[in-house]
Amino acid sequence: MNTRQLTELAQQLRVDSVRASAAAGSGHPTSSMSAADLMAVLLANHMRYDFERPAHPGNDRFVLSKGHASPLLYATYKAAGAINDTELLTFRRHGSRLEGHPTPRRLPWVETATGSLGQGLPVGVGIALAGKRLDRTGYRVWVLCGDSELAEGSVWEAAEHAGYEHLDNLTAIVDVNRLGQRGPTRHGHDLDAYARRFQAFGWHTVEVDGHDVDAIDRAYGEALSTAGQPTAIIARTLKGKGVASVQDREGLHGKPLPDAEEAIAELGGVRDLRVEVPHPPAARMVHPVSSGHADLPRYDIGDEVATRDAYGRALAALGTARGDVVALDGEVSDSTRSEFFAKEHPDRFFECYIAEQQLVATSVGMATRGWVPYASTFAAFLTRAYDFVRMASISGAGINLVGSHAGVAIGQDGPSQMGLEDLAMFRAIYGSTVLYPCDANQTAKLVAEMAGLDGIRYLRTSRGAGPVIYSPTEEFPIGGSKVLRASGDDRLTVVAAGVTLHEALAAAELLEREGVQVRVIDLYSVKPVDRRTLREAAESTGCLLTVEDHREEGGIGDAVLDAFTDGRPVPRLARLAVRTMPGSASPEEQLHAAGIDAESIAAAARLLVETAVVR
Amino acid sequence: MNTRQLTELAQQLRVDSVRASAAAGSGHPTSSMSAADLMAVLLANHMRYDFERPAHPGNDRFVLSKGHASPLLYATYKAAGAINDTELLTFRRHGSRLEGHPTPRRLPWVETATGSLGQGLPVGVGIALAGKRLDRTGYRVWVLCGDSELAEGSVWEAAEHAGYEHLDNLTAIVDVNRLGQRGPTRHGHDLDAYARRFQAFGWHTVEVDGHDVDAIDRAYGEALSTAGQPTAIIARTLKGKGVASVQDREGLHGKPLPDAEEAIAELGGVRDLRVEVPHPPAARMVHPVSSGHADLPRYDIGDEVATRDAYGRALAALGTARGDVVALDGEVSDSTRSEFFAKEHPDRFFECYIAEQQLVATSVGMATRGWVPYASTFAAFLTRAYDFVRMASISGAGINLVGSHAGVAIGQDGPSQMGLEDLAMFRAIYGSTVLYPCDANQTAKLVAEMAGLDGIRYLRTSRGAGPVIYSPTEEFPIGGSKVLRASGDDRLTVVAAGVTLHEALAAAELLEREGVQVRVIDLYSVKPVDRRTLREAAESTGCLLTVEDHREEGGIGDAVLDAFTDGRPVPRLARLAVRTMPGSASPEEQLHAAGIDAESIAAAARLLVETAVVR
Repeated sequence: MNTRQLTELAQQLRVDSVRASAAAGSGHPTSSMSAADLMAVLLANHMRYDFERPAHPGNDRFVLSKGHASPLLYATYKAAGAINDTELLTFRRHGSRLEGHPTPRRLPWVETATGSLGQGLPVGVGIALAGKRLDRTGYRVWVLCGDSELAEGSVWEAAEHAGYEHLDNLTAIVDVNRLGQRGPTRHGHDLDAYARRFQAFGWHTVEVDGHDVDAIDRAYGEALSTAGQPTAIIARTLKGKGVASVQDREGLHGKPLPDAEEAIAELGGVRDLRVEVPHPPAARMVHPVSSGHADLPRYDIGDEVATRDAYGRALAALGTARGDVVALDGEVSDSTRSEFFAKEHPDRFFECYIAEQQLVATSVGMATRGWVPYASTFAAFLTRAYDFVRMASISGAGINLVGSHAGVAIGQDGPSQMGLEDLAMFRAIYGSTVLYPCDANQTAKLVAEMAGLDGIRYLRTSRGAGPVIYSPTEEFPIGGSKVLRASGDDRLTVVAAGVTLHEALAAAELLEREGVQVRVIDLYSVKPVDRRTLREAAESTGCLLTVEDHREEGGIGDAVLDAFTDGRPVPRLARLAVRTMPGSASPEEQLHAAGIDAESIAAAARLLVETAVVR
Repeated sequence: MNTRQLTELAQQLRVDSVRASAAAGSGHPTSSMSAADLMAVLLANHMRYDFERPAHPGNDRFVLSKGHASPLLYATYKAAGAINDTELLTFRRHGSRLEGHPTPRRLPWVETATGSLGQGLPVGVGIALAGKRLDRTGYRVWVLCGDSELAEGSVWEAAEHAGYEHLDNLTAIVDVNRLGQRGPTRHGHDLDAYARRFQAFGWHTVEVDGHDVDAIDRAYGEALSTAGQPTAIIARTLKGKGVASVQDREGLHGKPLPDAEEAIAELGGVRDLRVEVPHPPAARMVHPVSSGHADLPRYDIGDEVATRDAYGRALAALGTARGDVVALDGEVSDSTRSEFFAKEHPDRFFECYIAEQQLVATSVGMATRGWVPYASTFAAFLTRAYDFVRMASISGAGINLVGSHAGVAIGQDGPSQMGLEDLAMFRAIYGSTVLYPCDANQTAKLVAEMAGLDGIRYLRTSRGAGPVIYSPTEEFPIGGSKVLRASGDDRLTVVAAGVTLHEALAAAELLEREGVQVRVIDLYSVKPVDRRTLREAAESTGCLLTVEDHREEGGIGDAVLDAFTDGRPVPRLARLAVRTMPGSASPEEQLHAAGIDAESIAAAARLLVETAVVR
């Protein structure tokens, strides 16, 4: 498009942003208006995209990191013919695809859910990395960022990653409208301040008047021709551009325009320009064919193996069977054991360094392109990326996250390294799967099974070695459990997983010698939980005792209770969990101090059994 | 100290790091050895600190951001005479104060727990900000960082904050030993790469040979004389410096030296130098005297007030009563309503921009200096700082965190802005308090009460207005609840809080018209939970129904269940929570779609009551 056409298109995007927000009675038109010229030029002259085939492997990818500017995005879809005017005006209504912040659950052209600021660029980096190192179909990744969100450290984590990886297929477009939600940003219209920061991280930068369509056009051209570096286009804009009563004024964030009719008139009225977005060149997905069957490592019963080791070896085997599996790690692959995958499949291993937000964001980005990522770090450090996990679940992203070094059982390193909140954190995530194996064969099976699930899947592994108790042929369906000890005389059921499962079995031995029979259930699938087996155990033993190497809130204890919230009678319940703040100590001392070792389990069981008799 | 003495002291720190790790059989001696010269010069020639009075208001503050180098820290304590050699060798043993990663719970000279990388500098920024804008006692803040941890975005979030605030009382010392845990860092010994990044964020930088004690001495002097900017000293070092068999070699992270005796000999043997650390000049704490009694806003029953508004007004009143209260916000003070505090107490309000990790870290830093911080943003966005909250609890920090815009009740903005995992996240934190008020008078009382609690305190507020139901004279003890409806004929107890409490009351009205009496409990204290009242209600009504605007895992439902995990008989239980992925809709439509409005509660209650009759 030429200058006049681009200017007209930008005005249409503004008008439609104003109209959609007015119809909704809420939304962010002023944040949309600042970036309208940037979007118009991108759509008309640079983006290569087939709106009828959003999965086209050659399509460029666009991420609206400033997700609140959704009216602009939807106005763009209308201009591209992807939605009609009637749908545009359903913005923010119940049942509409056009939500307040865009999500791929509803709209096929959205790569990732945004609305938590500072996440679009990190996910864009993940997509660009997939483009560069996996897909190689030549697509470009365009990310529209706000200036306010550049205060998020995650943006610089992403900038560092992109610069280091020389992602010249990535362009960040920064809409510097100088106004945040409650007032001016730190750097106002000081474009140099932002440029210096991006340059320091190895980016090429272009400063531009974000309302000069020709200058924008040249800037995009410069980004496309820059080799070896990502480009940041730093655009000076005005919030609410084009409507004098709101332009560059404070106090108008996230509000429809006071007088939409007048604003539309000032913007030159409603238009209905239609952009023919050029299609990408033909391209093929490159995912190597999956053999479908992984030749998983097999362990002999009685062997002492850490589940983290079993994880690494199983993942390496899965990677051999499935060409679509990729692994990522947060600079601790020698601890999480993803190094086994790295050694066998270096082309599909991604070192994310100590940057857990980028670790998860890269996974999300790769998952958008059809890859099956397994991202690992210490369970404790996945807390760093909780907001990214939350947003990934809103996206409907299918990613595997693996947290090693679970619980106090890690020993001497102390509480900062202990995953003690991870089960709670992942259980609360919509549609998540939470797995916690206790032996190597179980771990291997679960690692393979995770790949085929929907949503966020979390696997918790342990540092120390434990005995193999299952045969390599045993199956572990998601949502299942294993009853490891049971008799007609059971007077209590102990429910455990991971390290405490072994303690529970030892406690059961102790108790048996005292003439007390207890049932033991391995709750390897913490979510979804095996309600039927738990209910049966409750009915036949009358009392359940849960034991976990995790805080008492949100973990295995709560997962078990969930099985009894259907209004039917509930068994007696008790739980053992980590109620103290641990220090340094050996793994055995830790389990004992926290009251979750065999001895503590046996003591609690005795008390429960006795109380039952008294009544 | 002169060159020779400093060199000797540094060797002593290395030797003691090797000895402590050897005695423990674990630990990070090589990461300690790289920074020994940096620490020796700091301790001997620049730090002003009274080890006998760690609370001295004039003391410089030191943060070991690379917390795994704890042997070096403890060796330094020994050199300063704060601990003796016998204690040094208890490193990492059960019961020792010298944990694998340092924590202020055990050691009075530690400002903040570290061990999750990239958090020391952010907390240091908080302390420096307190020094600059609140305490004004002239202390300096020194933070020793690793090079690996500079991959964390939180470091650059902190760098941005420090540069913008002109924190010339802050010095970051970066130990560039080029080796991370599993191998080389991104930038190796490229000191310029790090310097460029710090400079871009407005820092003064000094590049130095980290093993040249005179050069280090000059660098610290330069940092002290730099006005208007924080300084980053980028020091080229060798991991394992001084012992040829480990120096600058990969694969030796986090391991005791292979031959400690030989290493000690190579380092010149055991020494027992003692450093007289200069004391700070006399200084007084400046916390203005607290009146002790806050004149809280009072609301009339029946008024429609949002709890977020009540939060802002109560905090402003508390700030008037207590000079030690400070408020911080993540650039959404017009939404969280901390703007009311900002207007009345601008000197004690801190804008953290859209940087939730720094928001929490600044709070932690200020709390170390005796201030009582209230930090607010959307509940959803506190997920961004979960690792910081986790580490704050390990520190034993007393901070108030306030999450607004809880649940689906926010309406049109959609899931990215909805706090739906916050209760789970905060409940799982050790020693936390979790509060969720339903009306304005209750909010005001809880805001005042929070200030006096230990540990992490979380308050959840709502976007929309709701009716005031409590008198301004009502008290709301932490760990309590309110029975709002009760009769001898109650056949069910509905437990709710916040927005669903009002829905529960409406449901009870509906059911009463049908002849069904239900008890209603306001569970404003989600943690600790009022076990006694819940147990009483269970015994007299036989069945509990929980209703919450939160995911079904880890929230009010689980909190209520906790009251029944003591092995005694359990009532029948059922729960209503947000089981769907919401889109955009009005608040009323959202509550209805999620099945947590009055109509849904009444329907669930009817079913439960009927089921009870059948049995």
